[in-house]
Amino acid sequence: MGNRNGEDIGQLLDDAEKHFLAHISLDCVVFGWHANELKILLLKMKNLDRLALPGGFVMHQETMEEAAIRTLRERTGLENIFLQQFQVFSDPLRSDPENRAKDLEKMGVNRKRAAWFRQRFISLGFYSLVDFSKVDPRPDIFSDACSWYNLGDRGTMVLDHDHILQTALGVLRTQLNHQPIGYNLLPRKFTLPELQKLYETILDRKLDRRNFQRKVFSYGILRSLDEKRTGVAHKAPYLYSFDLRQYQKALKLGLQGGW
Amino acid sequence: MGNRNGEDIGQLLDDAEKHFLAHISLDCVVFGWHANELKILLLKMKNLDRLALPGGFVMHQETMEEAAIRTLRERTGLENIFLQQFQVFSDPLRSDPENRAKDLEKMGVNRKRAAWFRQRFISLGFYSLVDFSKVDPRPDIFSDACSWYNLGDRGTMVLDHDHILQTALGVLRTQLNHQPIGYNLLPRKFTLPELQKLYETILDRKLDRRNFQRKVFSYGILRSLDEKRTGVAHKAPYLYSFDLRQYQKALKLGLQGGW
Repeated sequence: MGNRNGEDIGQLLDDAEKHFLAHISLDCVVFGWHANELKILLLKMKNLDRLALPGGFVMHQETMEEAAIRTLRERTGLENIFLQQFQVFSDPLRSDPENRAKDLEKMGVNRKRAAWFRQRFISLGFYSLVDFSKVDPRPDIFSDACSWYNLGDRGTMVLDHDHILQTALGVLRTQLNHQPIGYNLLPRKFTLPELQKLYETILDRKLDRRNFQRKVFSYGILRSLDEKRTGVAHKAPYLYSFDLRQYQKALKLGLQGGW
Repeated sequence: MGNRNGEDIGQLLDDAEKHFLAHISLDCVVFGWHANELKILLLKMKNLDRLALPGGFVMHQETMEEAAIRTLRERTGLENIFLQQFQVFSDPLRSDPENRAKDLEKMGVNRKRAAWFRQRFISLGFYSLVDFSKVDPRPDIFSDACSWYNLGDRGTMVLDHDHILQTALGVLRTQLNHQPIGYNLLPRKFTLPELQKLYETILDRKLDRRNFQRKVFSYGILRSLDEKRTGVAHKAPYLYSFDLRQYQKALKLGLQGGW
């Protein structure tokens, strides 16, 4: 995974007025799942005690989606991540211009650049769910660290980023009810308890085994492999894989969309 | 329903740079349903052969939601409409600045005002579903007419408004699968065939009566009234009303959200 050279980002922001549209920003909420842990990708800002979602601005010839992908690459090193827009955050008080300028000065951002940050920004939130064991986040020049945090103990966040994160989590949980999930997160062959664990981790509660199985089977997205997990002491569980054709159809239509 | 004085809107736009944030716009897709017809609220632009969604801009101290409500009031006279944001449209080519300026001049918009419109706008789409027999749309100073059009024969639209409308329609249809619909559209007491007709009109296809009834009953949002429609020749159908408590719960959680 590549990262844009830190000095380039600095240069870009020094000329922010020239490169970016005024008033519009974006923030990326990247959830990471692996081995039944759900985490969130955050930046530890330089000289600040607060964390931030990787966020950025929009160049004159970019769509919001292109800007989000570029921002995530520049600020965290993550590439080829599918990002989905979910909500616009537009409270005029979401950022206090004076506090923001002070924070930026603490972080070593020069005065000219800090001035541009004082304007009001309306931010579009994007979210994504990736396997955190497969990506290698790296901080940009404004951050001391870029790492995966547990949802439960992540510390204070800048601006309204905590609200953006909570909203994204709600959207992800709702998505579980209407779209299949798990492809690219589970191994190609998985057991039903493994799939259930994925759902339980995201929903943060236990599910009834029988209800869960009845429901996922009713979607028609699972293929039974007539093959068992080997190397297990007793009662080896059967393996399944996703029926990709049905999975994609369900993604498009919503799991229970048929009237 | 009141409408802002036309000259006020003109004045507002003459000083657009002072009043509005640059680069950000919004467009309202207002669907109207009544007696099994689904319509869309559009403006017929002055001296143009094309129709437009009611759209506008954001004042410095407004949220996007507040701006959408004000815009709809100013441009169509509609008040107290619940608008839901659904997607940001950000293709840099969604508007050709030269064409836009020419159109505005044809509509009698002065040169100073037209210049401001040449900039790139990223637009947030809002949608709503109302009973079109209960509202009284009125055009603003830029429009010859503001009226309800059939979805099937509505003529050419400006910019990417056709794409925004189609996207909103997809969102409305998806919403049918995951949220209850009908409150504020149907009379307080209604029959199951009336409810089914509402769904069929929005989905634009026939539904199987038995499947439909099984499904809506399973949501627990209907209250059987033990009362029949009077004045019907034979086989008078039973009346139902929405169980508002269950309806609101389903609105919040999604109809089949439980795992």
